[in-house]
Amino acid sequence: MNETGDFDFYPAEHSISFSSTDGEKVEIEWSDGHQSKFNFLWLRDNCPCCVHPDTMEPLFNVASIADDEFISSVSTSEEGFLQVVWSKDSHISHFHPGWLRANCFLDASNRFTPKAIAWDSKTRKEPKRFNWDEIISKTETEREWLFSLVEDGCSITQNVEPSKDGLIRITERIGVVRETNFGLFFNVEAKNGPDTAAYTEIELPPHTDLPTREYQPGLQLLHCLKNSVKGGESILVDGFRVAEEIRLNHPEAFDLLTTIPWDFGNRSTVSDYRWRAPMINVGLDGEINEVRVGNFLRVPLQVDFDLVEPMYKAYKLFETLNQEDRFKLSFRLNQGECLIFDNRRVLHARNSFDPSKGERHFCGCYIERDELWSSIRMIDRRNRQKIINSSSNE
Amino acid sequence: MNETGDFDFYPAEHSISFSSTDGEKVEIEWSDGHQSKFNFLWLRDNCPCCVHPDTMEPLFNVASIADDEFISSVSTSEEGFLQVVWSKDSHISHFHPGWLRANCFLDASNRFTPKAIAWDSKTRKEPKRFNWDEIISKTETEREWLFSLVEDGCSITQNVEPSKDGLIRITERIGVVRETNFGLFFNVEAKNGPDTAAYTEIELPPHTDLPTREYQPGLQLLHCLKNSVKGGESILVDGFRVAEEIRLNHPEAFDLLTTIPWDFGNRSTVSDYRWRAPMINVGLDGEINEVRVGNFLRVPLQVDFDLVEPMYKAYKLFETLNQEDRFKLSFRLNQGECLIFDNRRVLHARNSFDPSKGERHFCGCYIERDELWSSIRMIDRRNRQKIINSSSNE
Repeated sequence: MNETGDFDFYPAEHSISFSSTDGEKVEIEWSDGHQSKFNFLWLRDNCPCCVHPDTMEPLFNVASIADDEFISSVSTSEEGFLQVVWSKDSHISHFHPGWLRANCFLDASNRFTPKAIAWDSKTRKEPKRFNWDEIISKTETEREWLFSLVEDGCSITQNVEPSKDGLIRITERIGVVRETNFGLFFNVEAKNGPDTAAYTEIELPPHTDLPTREYQPGLQLLHCLKNSVKGGESILVDGFRVAEEIRLNHPEAFDLLTTIPWDFGNRSTVSDYRWRAPMINVGLDGEINEVRVGNFLRVPLQVDFDLVEPMYKAYKLFETLNQEDRFKLSFRLNQGECLIFDNRRVLHARNSFDPSKGERHFCGCYIERDELWSSIRMIDRRNRQKIINSSSNE
Repeated sequence: MNETGDFDFYPAEHSISFSSTDGEKVEIEWSDGHQSKFNFLWLRDNCPCCVHPDTMEPLFNVASIADDEFISSVSTSEEGFLQVVWSKDSHISHFHPGWLRANCFLDASNRFTPKAIAWDSKTRKEPKRFNWDEIISKTETEREWLFSLVEDGCSITQNVEPSKDGLIRITERIGVVRETNFGLFFNVEAKNGPDTAAYTEIELPPHTDLPTREYQPGLQLLHCLKNSVKGGESILVDGFRVAEEIRLNHPEAFDLLTTIPWDFGNRSTVSDYRWRAPMINVGLDGEINEVRVGNFLRVPLQVDFDLVEPMYKAYKLFETLNQEDRFKLSFRLNQGECLIFDNRRVLHARNSFDPSKGERHFCGCYIERDELWSSIRMIDRRNRQKIINSSSNE
């Protein structure tokens, strides 16, 4: 039997000094003085033996908790587990002390809280750069590399083989590639018969990719295979930073941009993706959690006549700010460099270039953001496993 | 030059009888008496000649509209186009009457508004059934088949080749398959060493797939290759219907379920996806637009102690209602039948089965919901093209 009820590892750094219950909650004092409080329903739900032995997924269903269920008694076992005796089904739950402490909401150190740290051209000159060889040889660097995408929303990976295979190797370190109507991997170069502006040589204003879709892709990877043209510099803008600027200085525009949907759509002979959504999305916690921007990826706005003018004015402000130098990172992506950015936060743009002299060829793809977070957690889990293994070898 | 500025088709059923401007708006009276009103910023933004000739994507950027731009004059050309003369850049925009009428917000018939129609076991006994041969031979049936997924959120397609290839052919009629950690296509059958409950023979309570992900997959396709076991009946529940029931009768529980996030997570040795989100999501318009449910796909809830008990009580109510017969459609999926449902709306469940006698093998995959809507729009577009072609042949 697995002691914790899941596949993770829980080094037991502290032991239970004291536990008590009033039937509806369990209070615990730990060897380091920390105090925990667990509700009885939460404990019943998380009983580690009530899971499927193979999948570790809960078998116990919350709907089956009797209305008069409560805790009869608690104690600490010889192995240091919290033992909870239930009143109704006389079940006994055994909670591993490491697991219990790791899931104590009152211990702030437990919470994995990825948080965007907004930037502009004053606070950041270029995306952070990482060396591919170091990423694949040092777990610590790999974690920093992944985590920088959570905090900064962008990074450049250097010394990657300038080929599609080089890009594929990067994706394997992050997660499953999200295919779209542009394919699993797409080639960004000036083409004959382009089906979107990216595949021309023209300037691209700051935008997110696929605002035309219900779910804009999370991470975008743009890997430079060749870049010998004049022009074509890459530009990034932290959309969250600009949105905060509007919230602070133009509250009426912010209100319009966060509550009234715009109409986005692709232009194509073979598909007709459309989505209606506000350009700035604010989460339940009041934090900005998504921007949706693309001047050339819109279709005619469909709203009440009286809203049209104020909405255009708010949008013009947003678009104008997105193009201001004070928010822009501008740099040249060179052969063997892969730019990765959070497409729901960081707008990307490029200067026009001259395709007649030289070549500019990027290979790109999308990966959902939560793949990144899963990869970070797996690194942390393996580190915890090492701690347990080394302590059991002592 | 394309006359309308995009790749769609606009049969000109009505002509412009009269147009006028005060500089900031254009008022139009049509041959059928309908009246339109267009704002000058909207018109400038949508000028059909200011697009890229290949991609049809707008080249004109809203940020470049001069603060003192307005309309100098409007008139109707010999070909029936609305001609708008601009004050600042002396540009002239020519709007195709069919395009203009199709984008008039005051004409309610223009609006493509897919709308879920909630059901329960009183109003619906089984998912609607469609015949694959009819879908691929009759455009009208194909559209009905696609549209039923918008309205009902579920359907069964019959007479599909009982193989992965049969499933692939269905996906080709809808859109790009979304790959996940379970692969591009997954086999649902009782396996040795299952990595999730679906791959066992146990009962599955009503749930959405991958509530553990930032974006739950949109459509789920489950194609029955074999089903000769006892038990294993498929069950569907309209999550929007249950959520409305809670909104109506248990407003406090509804408030908790729509505003406080739960912790979802997969259990795996190779990935650690987690997401925090309320179980019911309400859009800006007050409509329920997503449910996120999976008793066995949760990890320990992390919230303030005082919230734990009320949240569990609200969740227990939701879980209990989801299991009530009055909301359930129950049916047996037979060989060659493909069940498709909106995974962000319709919960699915199954009864346990006996894998020792007979075989039960489904092949599944996910497709985003907006792929469906794009496919519906393309059918409508081809129908408009036919109208134009037949009128030009007359």
